[in-house]
Amino acid sequence: MPTLVLLRHGQSQWNLENRFTGWWDVDLSDKGVTEAKAAGGLLKARKLDFDCCFTSVQTRAIKTLHLVLEEMDRLWLPVTKDWRLNERHYGGLTGLNKQEMIDKVGADQVKIWRRSFDTPPPPLDAGSPYAITNDRRYAGVTVPQSESLKDTIERVLPYFEAAIVPELRAGKNVLISAHGNSLRALEKHLSNIGDQEIVGLEIPTGQPIVYDLADDLTVRDRYYLAERPA
Amino acid sequence: MPTLVLLRHGQSQWNLENRFTGWWDVDLSDKGVTEAKAAGGLLKARKLDFDCCFTSVQTRAIKTLHLVLEEMDRLWLPVTKDWRLNERHYGGLTGLNKQEMIDKVGADQVKIWRRSFDTPPPPLDAGSPYAITNDRRYAGVTVPQSESLKDTIERVLPYFEAAIVPELRAGKNVLISAHGNSLRALEKHLSNIGDQEIVGLEIPTGQPIVYDLADDLTVRDRYYLAERPA
Repeated sequence: MPTLVLLRHGQSQWNLENRFTGWWDVDLSDKGVTEAKAAGGLLKARKLDFDCCFTSVQTRAIKTLHLVLEEMDRLWLPVTKDWRLNERHYGGLTGLNKQEMIDKVGADQVKIWRRSFDTPPPPLDAGSPYAITNDRRYAGVTVPQSESLKDTIERVLPYFEAAIVPELRAGKNVLISAHGNSLRALEKHLSNIGDQEIVGLEIPTGQPIVYDLADDLTVRDRYYLAERPA
Repeated sequence: MPTLVLLRHGQSQWNLENRFTGWWDVDLSDKGVTEAKAAGGLLKARKLDFDCCFTSVQTRAIKTLHLVLEEMDRLWLPVTKDWRLNERHYGGLTGLNKQEMIDKVGADQVKIWRRSFDTPPPPLDAGSPYAITNDRRYAGVTVPQSESLKDTIERVLPYFEAAIVPELRAGKNVLISAHGNSLRALEKHLSNIGDQEIVGLEIPTGQPIVYDLADDLTVRDRYYLAERPA
């Protein structure tokens, strides 16, 4: 029976600064590196092992995965990187911290965005330093101007079905290193969480979430690895 | 016109101790980490860039590649890992340093092995601590007992033709992070080096070797990047 482990990247520099990051490619903080190594050590200690790994094309998730695999002596595992596992694109919020956002649009609007499942933030301002139109990694990809959580789900799940589900159906154990909202998409799908409920689900950085699946991929158990007795 | 860059991993712990390593999975030394980062910095400074990367399933080559890609802000590039790019399997020499080998078999025999293109060393002793029969990364692979350089070439080149040549023919720029002897195999093929000559070709650790190729993959130029003026 396959095991799927979801892992949100370790703390990034902008998590630390409380700024919306989205598709901007921010590195891990020192704490994030420590969290990633600890996640790898925990997976190894609990004897969880994998056949293949998936991640986004964003440095913080890739680096987290590499640090985990190094701790596990599993750098040799196949790793597939795909933009569909990227963080939600925060559009015009990219780069702002919570106070800057309130100053810009007002506290009421911020509440709407924070609580909404399907309202995207405004697009990036023209000429924003956080535009990524010339980034070669997105050649051939229509980079969104902004995404709601619903938009994010609508590109994560088809990728999950096409690329990851076949591995699970073949009995493979899979590790996904990704982001708060691309993992919300998977959690919503796997654990059948409602539209309003999923908005409030906080996924901590660097904490492996284990899904024990049946052969038909129904969920037998879901837990934070760190919360289970060794 | 495609560019192919060959990179031998940075110094490993056993390079430092002058021991035969082969398929034993030794990590980079501190100097090896520094060499890998420097290679990445050099590639970036000289504006060499890649579309895809290939490496072995051995930690020292994978880690070298990751350190290079991190320096280049290119962690998002696709990376394919395959055992056919592994180091030559040194059989019964694995783990021995030069003096231990002379003590074990005599200086004359050592000379023969060192100078021979097609004589493999003896197989690993039964019960050797360096046997890798239970290593999951080689599931489904017939792990050699020992390899001559000729044996190594005979598994590297078919993989190169099958997996890497199509990328080059499509005009892609390719980076290969591998090992002294798997890179000898490629150098022999690309630069048309004779059987006896190739045995003596020393490939330094952490030094990008650039092949400028024509569209039909004939070699237009081959040089150590560090030796070219910026």
